[in-house]
Amino acid sequence: MDAATVTAETALAALPRLMIEPIVRAALLEDLGRAGDITTDAIVPASARARVALVARKPGVVAGLDAALLAFELIDSAIETNVLRGDGARVGPGETIATLAGPARGLLTAERTALNLLCHLSGIATATAAIVDSVRGTRAHVVCTRKTMPGMRALQKHAVRAGGGSNHRFGLDDAVLIKDNHVAIAGSVAQAVRRARAHCGHLVKIELEVDTLAQLREAMELGVDAVLLDNMGPAMLAEAVALVAGRALTEASGGITAETAPAIAAAGVDLLSVGALTHSVKALDIGLDHVS
Amino acid sequence: MDAATVTAETALAALPRLMIEPIVRAALLEDLGRAGDITTDAIVPASARARVALVARKPGVVAGLDAALLAFELIDSAIETNVLRGDGARVGPGETIATLAGPARGLLTAERTALNLLCHLSGIATATAAIVDSVRGTRAHVVCTRKTMPGMRALQKHAVRAGGGSNHRFGLDDAVLIKDNHVAIAGSVAQAVRRARAHCGHLVKIELEVDTLAQLREAMELGVDAVLLDNMGPAMLAEAVALVAGRALTEASGGITAETAPAIAAAGVDLLSVGALTHSVKALDIGLDHVS
Amino acid sequence: MDAATVTAETALAALPRLMIEPIVRAALLEDLGRAGDITTDAIVPASARARVALVARKPGVVAGLDAALLAFELIDSAIETNVLRGDGARVGPGETIATLAGPARGLLTAERTALNLLCHLSGIATATAAIVDSVRGTRAHVVCTRKTMPGMRALQKHAVRAGGGSNHRFGLDDAVLIKDNHVAIAGSVAQAVRRARAHCGHLVKIELEVDTLAQLREAMELGVDAVLLDNMGPAMLAEAVALVAGRALTEASGGITAETAPAIAAAGVDLLSVGALTHSVKALDIGLDHVS
Amino acid sequence: MDAATVTAETALAALPRLMIEPIVRAALLEDLGRAGDITTDAIVPASARARVALVARKPGVVAGLDAALLAFELIDSAIETNVLRGDGARVGPGETIATLAGPARGLLTAERTALNLLCHLSGIATATAAIVDSVRGTRAHVVCTRKTMPGMRALQKHAVRAGGGSNHRFGLDDAVLIKDNHVAIAGSVAQAVRRARAHCGHLVKIELEVDTLAQLREAMELGVDAVLLDNMGPAMLAEAVALVAGRALTEASGGITAETAPAIAAAGVDLLSVGALTHSVKALDIGLDHVS
Amino acid sequence: MDAATVTAETALAALPRLMIEPIVRAALLEDLGRAGDITTDAIVPASARARVALVARKPGVVAGLDAALLAFELIDSAIETNVLRGDGARVGPGETIATLAGPARGLLTAERTALNLLCHLSGIATATAAIVDSVRGTRAHVVCTRKTMPGMRALQKHAVRAGGGSNHRFGLDDAVLIKDNHVAIAGSVAQAVRRARAHCGHLVKIELEVDTLAQLREAMELGVDAVLLDNMGPAMLAEAVALVAGRALTEASGGITAETAPAIAAAGVDLLSVGALTHSVKALDIGLDHVS
Amino acid sequence: MDAATVTAETALAALPRLMIEPIVRAALLEDLGRAGDITTDAIVPASARARVALVARKPGVVAGLDAALLAFELIDSAIETNVLRGDGARVGPGETIATLAGPARGLLTAERTALNLLCHLSGIATATAAIVDSVRGTRAHVVCTRKTMPGMRALQKHAVRAGGGSNHRFGLDDAVLIKDNHVAIAGSVAQAVRRARAHCGHLVKIELEVDTLAQLREAMELGVDAVLLDNMGPAMLAEAVALVAGRALTEASGGITAETAPAIAAAGVDLLSVGALTHSVKALDIGLDHVS
Repeated sequence: MDAATVTAETALAALPRLMIEPIVRAALLEDLGRAGDITTDAIVPASARARVALVARKPGVVAGLDAALLAFELIDSAIETNVLRGDGARVGPGETIATLAGPARGLLTAERTALNLLCHLSGIATATAAIVDSVRGTRAHVVCTRKTMPGMRALQKHAVRAGGGSNHRFGLDDAVLIKDNHVAIAGSVAQAVRRARAHCGHLVKIELEVDTLAQLREAMELGVDAVLLDNMGPAMLAEAVALVAGRALTEASGGITAETAPAIAAAGVDLLSVGALTHSVKALDIGLDHVS
Repeated sequence: MDAATVTAETALAALPRLMIEPIVRAALLEDLGRAGDITTDAIVPASARARVALVARKPGVVAGLDAALLAFELIDSAIETNVLRGDGARVGPGETIATLAGPARGLLTAERTALNLLCHLSGIATATAAIVDSVRGTRAHVVCTRKTMPGMRALQKHAVRAGGGSNHRFGLDDAVLIKDNHVAIAGSVAQAVRRARAHCGHLVKIELEVDTLAQLREAMELGVDAVLLDNMGPAMLAEAVALVAGRALTEASGGITAETAPAIAAAGVDLLSVGALTHSVKALDIGLDHVS
Repeated sequence: MDAATVTAETALAALPRLMIEPIVRAALLEDLGRAGDITTDAIVPASARARVALVARKPGVVAGLDAALLAFELIDSAIETNVLRGDGARVGPGETIATLAGPARGLLTAERTALNLLCHLSGIATATAAIVDSVRGTRAHVVCTRKTMPGMRALQKHAVRAGGGSNHRFGLDDAVLIKDNHVAIAGSVAQAVRRARAHCGHLVKIELEVDTLAQLREAMELGVDAVLLDNMGPAMLAEAVALVAGRALTEASGGITAETAPAIAAAGVDLLSVGALTHSVKALDIGLDHVS
Repeated sequence: MDAATVTAETALAALPRLMIEPIVRAALLEDLGRAGDITTDAIVPASARARVALVARKPGVVAGLDAALLAFELIDSAIETNVLRGDGARVGPGETIATLAGPARGLLTAERTALNLLCHLSGIATATAAIVDSVRGTRAHVVCTRKTMPGMRALQKHAVRAGGGSNHRFGLDDAVLIKDNHVAIAGSVAQAVRRARAHCGHLVKIELEVDTLAQLREAMELGVDAVLLDNMGPAMLAEAVALVAGRALTEASGGITAETAPAIAAAGVDLLSVGALTHSVKALDIGLDHVS
Repeated sequence: MDAATVTAETALAALPRLMIEPIVRAALLEDLGRAGDITTDAIVPASARARVALVARKPGVVAGLDAALLAFELIDSAIETNVLRGDGARVGPGETIATLAGPARGLLTAERTALNLLCHLSGIATATAAIVDSVRGTRAHVVCTRKTMPGMRALQKHAVRAGGGSNHRFGLDDAVLIKDNHVAIAGSVAQAVRRARAHCGHLVKIELEVDTLAQLREAMELGVDAVLLDNMGPAMLAEAVALVAGRALTEASGGITAETAPAIAAAGVDLLSVGALTHSVKALDIGLDHVS
Repeated sequence: MDAATVTAETALAALPRLMIEPIVRAALLEDLGRAGDITTDAIVPASARARVALVARKPGVVAGLDAALLAFELIDSAIETNVLRGDGARVGPGETIATLAGPARGLLTAERTALNLLCHLSGIATATAAIVDSVRGTRAHVVCTRKTMPGMRALQKHAVRAGGGSNHRFGLDDAVLIKDNHVAIAGSVAQAVRRARAHCGHLVKIELEVDTLAQLREAMELGVDAVLLDNMGPAMLAEAVALVAGRALTEASGGITAETAPAIAAAGVDLLSVGALTHSVKALDIGLDHVS
């Protein structure tokens, strides 16, 4: 993806079940503990059946539905599911996302684990979509960071894609991101970039964090793939974009919200990186209703 | 804990390392991926040493420091740590929580994982403390729910305690919580409670969700340990508390915030349960500064 | 469960497959080692089929049948099972518990793992039932302890329920049990109980071990949920029960057997706790017979 | 080990920590659950220290002490241990097996897990030693079977060695044991043995179960390494031993106890296999005493 | 297997799925990383279907097909497979081993993992078969060693069997192999053998490494099951075989290849052990072709 | 790394212990099985100590020494190690790589696991160095592929770096590699590249496999980061390099060996990718010698 070809039409593929099953399984076991769902086991007969619906209480974007439905299936494979609004869909209050039918015990036992996953991930997708919407018409893509929860990175990054965002690095190992501390230890930006190039494979991109336009000018001499423009205002960002002149991707970061995003995007940067998408998630309110 | 003896002096014990190490280890491995920290490995010499500090950027309450420091230790056991403000401590902007010294590579590689844990858990503690503060002087305790992230329940519930809150059930298996759907399937509140009693061990408490005062009156006949008063306003809560008259613990729930908490607590309930403490966490802003 | 409502009609729900599969899978892999069932692989053609029956050789109570049948299913999903006498059923010598049909290799390979689980857990259920039977007509419930085998607590406690018993704590975390050493360190019973109350959530019960009637009187002032009357004879237990007068559950413990249980139960205690149910298990003799 | 060289001087090596740590760790985590030792955390100050001793209440043979001590170490590495009577030692009532000193919290939290392992494994060693003692002076070795608990085979077989016994197969893969069902499917003893020989590696021994002396004669033609003489009385066993005449090891099995063992051993068999050693274990009574 | 009965007709049983699934699952997850197959997800529609064939590019022997096909099934259970040439089959260039049909995404995503397993294991089988072929007509069996890759021992040893070879020890625990260092520490061959006999169970064979004929003569006095004749030439091996005279199995080892094997086998040894079969594997060239 | 800046001075950082410990631990447990090292336990007294050296028998390049030494440390932490020639060092026959001293049991028990890792990984490094040496003086880098063993990718790719090579993709998720099948399904090279760009994050590079110069011309219009020139001879490669003219990295692949590499490198390509480096490894002959 070079600067000229960033487009909005990101496809959204499902994560392989192989990747999400261990997470869902562990979440269920954490909730079941050593005795299982003692309330349901005591009160609900094994023969009771029920029909339920996952219903949005607030407007938002769905994400994590596969994981949520898998929670029910792992508890009882006799539960049948029907998806109405899959990952990436925008839903309004009262809109049904999926329906489920089967043994009442399984539906009650898996409910909380399923909702925990669905509400959290839909919350990420919803917040992402809000910023994506706010910069529509600009060249800017919205990307997340590595500020994620243990074990949840693949799912949280998927939720960002469900909200129309794009993904930054997935870990310490799939791209180089040279920060101020690396530069300080290397002695200079040039030295840091040179070492990264020599060390890393040919399919690894290099991004460099810069705090000043002077650093940015130095970076442009070195041929990095992207520059992270940290905590700059719109005016300075516009100056930076002009200075880069398409020779690298430009990424703005630092406390960006749906309110501040439009002005930053208007400065012409390619990317807005927003840590809050995954580190400060407001769960989307989705409930499980019993239907007759 | 019966209604008369709820006090504010909850002790805060550290979680055994045995319980948090698997979480921290998995988080680090998720970030290291298959190639490790390629930026740091390329740029920072193995012999470089550094001194850093974990510094609060915003006011808040610390939680998860053990987990954060363990991230550094697991990456490089030569890193030495010094705790200034441990879990449960209130910190102001610029205040140092802990200092670390050792090989620069390890400090840089573990930084994000450590901060992800520390900022998230301190965010929970901070939000908890805000509500706890708002109801000081009342009998009300603030409790969290099972609306947690996969694998993080023990740590998130610990963070609630660090913020001065208390813990509701840890899972489906350590207490009975009879909800409307259980009652609907059982046929009546009485039938549901009776079955739960017969099924569960003598050290298991029973809490019953009630939506109306009529249900509450029925519950009082049955001798439950606690009642969950769902989505009731302060006036109705006061009426409910009077009706219960100390025969059970009273718990208010439903969208409680630091703004609405004082009025609800003033109604005389024993417990305020707040799902948002763990399902919608705003990370506390804590940074890692290099010190000379 | 307060003293007045302890009843004998404990329901028996199956443990979720999610909870028992890891145990059965690990047991099979432990037996298969690195080369698998070399005897069967060498001698039995892949095409051979067989019909077998799990048959009780001695009278007893069935427990763990789900786990046993799962062993066969995990080895070869083509094996079909038919349950005649499920968990909780009393069986006599020669009585068939379940029949299985399918590839002979799988039936032979899984046999030992399946029987190990079934005989052990049925042994627990059988021993539990013997004590439960011996106190029938009294108010006393029979409960197990935390004296279990690594990884087997959920299954062993389930087996106790299958035998008509009830469960004490499942771990260190789901109820408070204050023992003499805790009291010694706290300085007094009152101090220990007070700290426990302040520390623990509102759905956690508190039980206190007492060795003398003087301690028991002090405990009654403190409002604990249950008292553990350790190593007291029937006469002293009767005195203790009278002293408690329904204000807490009373639990007798200390070397209780089917022989000594009736006299202890006759003293009026609510609970008999029997460590031997899980720490000294005599396997029920159940065999696998080939049927034509 | 051929028939002539079976001796009593079996060495007892410790199992590598690598093999027992996962078991102990899992056992502790099972007991800690999601909230840890809430009783101890609430009542015992982090600074309290204690000295305790593991003391036999009944006579027996120690086994599993490494695992028991590891439970304390894994909970708190500051706990120091001192072994007085290690695995294989005979102890009398009141005799101290080991002493420990360190933080009181860790000592209390690990106590039950440590005792569960130590009492169970010492129970196995004690029962083994009783049978070994009963046949002293004969050529017979006492061996255990595959009738073990999930995940515990290595430790339980070690406990048998600690009691002076020897080990049969560790799994389905380390030796061939041809049973009646294998023979039935193969069509003849000869066919079964021939297939096993062709299939298995040169370091794999072959044992054959025989129920009659006719079968035994046939087996002697085939050159098997050992014969399992199932459910034969002393007279028939003596006849079998004479018939084998040292050409294979002879193993008696079927409900052998310390009472019946001497007569069976007197028949001259090389091995007595006793399933009850591991499938019906009576825990040795060992307690943890606080010492001043 | 004694010297007289070693035959070539080793059966080849499939490994239980239970044993290979964890390996295949881990291999797929290692390749999927945190974002999955981004190339395929981006380019290939979820609805696209394909038909592919696993085709040998070079002549060889198939091994590991179950594992390879399982890789596809674990990625997408909708993929259907058809086996033409299973484990142990000899294939020529261009010969189809199996065909698969189903969702194109799954076929592309699992391709590399499946081929990695199939090519590696078929490479082992092919190299084994070459040596087995080279000694056809002699009494010698070809066996592998413990020089295997982490986690792959069961599969690699299975591949040796697929190539017509046999298996030596599977680990440190299923047979005794006394090497020169053991002898040096024990003080003498006799002492080492005596200790091994006393320590090990009755179903454990003992093999002794000897470097000289003098040592071999000493070993024959001690009644070991097999002797490892290390780095001896054909003439010395023939002398050794004569000296042993059928009293033990004779195994030649030390850099044996298909070129040197015939002369060594002609010396009359029972076994040729070849570490290179598993430590220096040349993958068999097998490709995945899309078919119309 | 763009074409102009590829240099030979790749640094070699150690993999974090966190990443290699699970592999080494699993390898040891696989070898220990359920009974441990029965030979050593029987013969070698617990008090015996030894000094050993890891010694190269053939010339080569060291890799995996950390993993090998960790095997000893995990078996017995009392073993002390001293590194003479670390990863990346060239060694000659008879040259000592490291020395170890400590309990003889641990040294003997860990020996095979340690050597399996060290010989395999050093074999990879040695083969890599041979090709790297053969193209010295050209611009070409030698890279490995995803043709690795399950669970070993990180270590095998590290070994390639130790031999002076560089790494291609680590998995399906860290770079896009568009192959012929992707193009066929997409309908055209342009469509495939366009979809990949839209789908993937800004730090993901795109490489395209081309089989003809016509395809290569089309690719140059699309701005890909690298082109994989599959199975082209030197002349055609030279033409391809000229056509690309520095606009993308050029990678040659297809059966490259140390013999064919120089001519291919002379064609001016940036990268030679060699699957055999990891899929067909010849272990480096390294032994463990006891030293006095």
